[in-house]
Amino acid sequence: FSIIAHSKKLDEKQPCKRFVLYYHDILFNGSNAANATSATVANHTKLGNFNHGMLVVFDDPITKDNHLLSPPVARAQGFYFYDMKTAYNAWFSYTLIFNSTEHKGTINIMGADMMGEETRDLSVVGGTGDFFMTRGIATFRTDIAQDDYYFRLEMDIKLYECY
Amino acid sequence: FSIIAHSKKLDEKQPCKRFVLYYHDILFNGSNAANATSATVANHTKLGNFNHGMLVVFDDPITKDNHLLSPPVARAQGFYFYDMKTAYNAWFSYTLIFNSTEHKGTINIMGADMMGEETRDLSVVGGTGDFFMTRGIATFRTDIAQDDYYFRLEMDIKLYECY
Amino acid sequence: FSIIAHSKKLDEKQPCKRFVLYYHDILFNGSNAANATSATVANHTKLGNFNHGMLVVFDDPITKDNHLLSPPVARAQGFYFYDMKTAYNAWFSYTLIFNSTEHKGTINIMGADMMGEETRDLSVVGGTGDFFMTRGIATFRTDIAQDDYYFRLEMDIKLYECY
Repeated sequence: FSIIAHSKKLDEKQPCKRFVLYYHDILFNGSNAANATSATVANHTKLGNFNHGMLVVFDDPITKDNHLLSPPVARAQGFYFYDMKTAYNAWFSYTLIFNSTEHKGTINIMGADMMGEETRDLSVVGGTGDFFMTRGIATFRTDIAQDDYYFRLEMDIKLYECY
Repeated sequence: FSIIAHSKKLDEKQPCKRFVLYYHDILFNGSNAANATSATVANHTKLGNFNHGMLVVFDDPITKDNHLLSPPVARAQGFYFYDMKTAYNAWFSYTLIFNSTEHKGTINIMGADMMGEETRDLSVVGGTGDFFMTRGIATFRTDIAQDDYYFRLEMDIKLYECY
Repeated sequence: FSIIAHSKKLDEKQPCKRFVLYYHDILFNGSNAANATSATVANHTKLGNFNHGMLVVFDDPITKDNHLLSPPVARAQGFYFYDMKTAYNAWFSYTLIFNSTEHKGTINIMGADMMGEETRDLSVVGGTGDFFMTRGIATFRTDIAQDDYYFRLEMDIKLYECY
């Protein structure tokens, strides 16, 4: 079976699967090891005043609602770094790992987190297990940024290729 | 609607969208903060003499022609690092961010930049906005590498999945 | 030609291309520069006792069998880091580079390496050259982890989109 498929039609409003998740990042500050879920691997550079270059590796809990203490339905493992000289702005690459009776598998995501925008879209570039070969869009919205050590993102995952 | 599509035909010479862009990287050297667009986050390791492990985070201007001072049509945000012991060779992962009347959206790219080759192909792994769900190839060509602190890449972006 | 293809059928057991490769990582320890193929770019953080945050950049040989000294059929260039507080667990993003009479081109891969699992699936997110636009799954199995400075992974590459 063979097609030439240069231009396909997909309705952005009609994903084949969609779910909203919350991502909780508690940055290690030297004294919160019991609660911390991420830590700084490389300190910010001296370019500007917005943490440019600060690189954080995380293994963060993912919940269905926006309560930090809700039972995690997945983990998010990966990294982000800040990349702008003149504003806070980040870049993410990570894997959502599901290992429950409901879902087993992973979703791989990468893209820019333009923190100044109300929402921003990253790419779902692949998946495994229950999410075999999926693609789509992950829309970030900052739910809260409490201080330097806790922030929470709403991740609206819309999959447009489901196998 | 359901298909089994193991083998598809795509003509590498017939992308559904194509544009050539120029990427300008001005590395922070401690005294050029006003102009610098990138900075070293981790210094090179002691493995070989070709900057192995040197990791750079950038927010670089993208122009339509190869003039650094032309009005940027996009930003490139992400990182690269050098990865070889015996030659200069890099690896990139980044997002092209378009925010103009002409284009709004992002294109996510990753792959090896085998600097010894005249041209090298990286993967366009996803997109958002005007580039919703796109995939393709980004072909790099070094336009100039002026000194340790400025280089310019021609990026020939060929998209083969357009929605 | 235009389709709306939300849900497609792919048989996970029937890739359009499949090959098993071995990845050899010899970490630079300060005195093995002649043999080393990777080096630590950022040291582990103080979060837990499992190398959290340790970031390694590699240019590793890829062989068809599990002998380190077999002739390489490809290189793997990219990085991995450890990301857990309570166990060894890694995250990879890299490019397989083929440059032989048999294959020319690259395959781009990213995902979580849950080292505690017997096998784990990462995403093949793109390809170039002979692997133009490919997608699929890379299944990791640890073949050996000899000491702190050598480990070998079996990578079972299954491609489901071949052009």
